[in-house]
Amino acid sequence: MLTNIEHIGIAVKDINASNELFTKLFNIAPYKSESVESEGVTTSFFKINATKIELLEATNQESAIAKFVEKKGEGIHHVAFEVDDILTEMQRLEKEGFILLNKEPKHGADNKLVCFLHPKGTNGVLIELCQEIK
Amino acid sequence: MLTNIEHIGIAVKDINASNELFTKLFNIAPYKSESVESEGVTTSFFKINATKIELLEATNQESAIAKFVEKKGEGIHHVAFEVDDILTEMQRLEKEGFILLNKEPKHGADNKLVCFLHPKGTNGVLIELCQEIK
Repeated sequence: MLTNIEHIGIAVKDINASNELFTKLFNIAPYKSESVESEGVTTSFFKINATKIELLEATNQESAIAKFVEKKGEGIHHVAFEVDDILTEMQRLEKEGFILLNKEPKHGADNKLVCFLHPKGTNGVLIELCQEIK
Repeated sequence: MLTNIEHIGIAVKDINASNELFTKLFNIAPYKSESVESEGVTTSFFKINATKIELLEATNQESAIAKFVEKKGEGIHHVAFEVDDILTEMQRLEKEGFILLNKEPKHGADNKLVCFLHPKGTNGVLIELCQEIK
């Protein structure tokens, strides 16, 4: 089961400027920042009720975020759904015909195991499944 | 205050096919469908915890959704944030330099007053404010 929209990821060019902008928008400051070296990103998180907004700036040109911004400009990059059991959910979705971008869960930001679904199979939406590491 | 992510709006070409697809993804069916003639869209809603996923198909070529799909393809179109008092929030955000796409709240789907912010001022993200009509 996809039990919650855990976060919405927004690709930005300058995370400091965007932190200021979204702080004005939400009237709250980001509650944390984190770099994920394996993904080549610096992130910051804003909490909105049961969901988070994650801003992502690329730290190198090979990062998926750098390529996204180059191709499409800044904007929403992905939506992440919380799952209780990522392996079971990955199996269920693969059986339903969704395309998994990683066959094994990998470590994402914010202490999560994550798996992405190919946007080709989800109406152009890049979907992340994530499970909290206990 | 933006108190909750009320919904994420996804532009699709064929809402019947997409209803099937997202029913498989979420393992739940949409809980309602609704046409908004003024916006030229047919919508359907899936509930995920405190948030909704809204699918939008254009019903005419002048609809913003038709233009979006033509230009960018299917995908996430907007993120809607719940507000307690839309007029106060519109004033606050305009003072902060955000660009309101409508100067007066208008009627949206799902019994809401809505206002959109220009994505030029929000890192490419089309943001909707919405307040439940009591």
